[in-house]
Amino acid sequence: MERVGGEVVWEGRLNRVRVDRFRYDDGEEAEREIVEHPGAVGIVAHDGEIVYLVRQPREAVGDDALLELPAGKLDEEGEKPLDTAQRELAEEIGKGARSWQHLTSFYTSPGFTDEECHLFMATDLYDQSAEADENERIEIVEWPLSELDRAIRDSRDAKTLVGLLWLRAFLCSTKG
Amino acid sequence: MERVGGEVVWEGRLNRVRVDRFRYDDGEEAEREIVEHPGAVGIVAHDGEIVYLVRQPREAVGDDALLELPAGKLDEEGEKPLDTAQRELAEEIGKGARSWQHLTSFYTSPGFTDEECHLFMATDLYDQSAEADENERIEIVEWPLSELDRAIRDSRDAKTLVGLLWLRAFLCSTKG
Repeated sequence: MERVGGEVVWEGRLNRVRVDRFRYDDGEEAEREIVEHPGAVGIVAHDGEIVYLVRQPREAVGDDALLELPAGKLDEEGEKPLDTAQRELAEEIGKGARSWQHLTSFYTSPGFTDEECHLFMATDLYDQSAEADENERIEIVEWPLSELDRAIRDSRDAKTLVGLLWLRAFLCSTKG
Repeated sequence: MERVGGEVVWEGRLNRVRVDRFRYDDGEEAEREIVEHPGAVGIVAHDGEIVYLVRQPREAVGDDALLELPAGKLDEEGEKPLDTAQRELAEEIGKGARSWQHLTSFYTSPGFTDEECHLFMATDLYDQSAEADENERIEIVEWPLSELDRAIRDSRDAKTLVGLLWLRAFLCSTKG
């Protein structure tokens, strides 16, 4: 398929909406509404006993305290995903990590948005204070790895499910 | 937190964008841009040897053939997620299933959209022809369960990762 045209129809602070026109190999054309997003990172940060999660209000889904991985948007010009992940881990839970591993990258909802989320695992953690974003109402949750399955069953957030399930499937011998 | 106002700022065929105003318990107020979405379903359909996946063009992310679970939007008035899942399984891969299990439901990107995705597992499959949506350019992929780990590593789609990782972590003894 080939993009043959398009226009921006709305622009906000975070997102922009385009209506693009595509031509397929069979000659047919179709319009698609696309919500642009700068991309995001999520971090599975654990010390072998505790996985560090957060609870925060998510206005879009009407939840006062959604259980999530530490995470953030790629909103600083030119910042690489790993740099964003390191900054967010310090800002959200006050930790640095000596070991970083890229787990996977995925589209959150490729039917309508270009948002890509990059997941990292952070281990060998140490305390690192950082200036927290004053606008972030974030509660740190120290979740025992021995109860990982309960976190997976409680989670309602895509990146958190992918990160914790990846830990459960490939990296963690603990059975909850 | 409490929603104290808002307005629709853009409306398309699938999505609508609202700018809502929220008041938090500490009295502070903030505006949030929210992209409305009708919600979606995804189906982990397998017969113990094959898991049925699809490849389809995803214009929003510029991919001609993204590997995904059979899936669809809750776009018919009043249709329940399980009914949508049963309809989409027939339309996309031509199968019905005698056994359906709800796995989990999650928000695809709760920082900016209300989209909720409901995942089901479908087993005890049988052939069922249905009128395929002519506009869907969908290729059926019969993926061996013995190579489940490779599907997980190849997948770039959130719901597909959650579904296949759930299968890998909790339901499937196959090690790829």
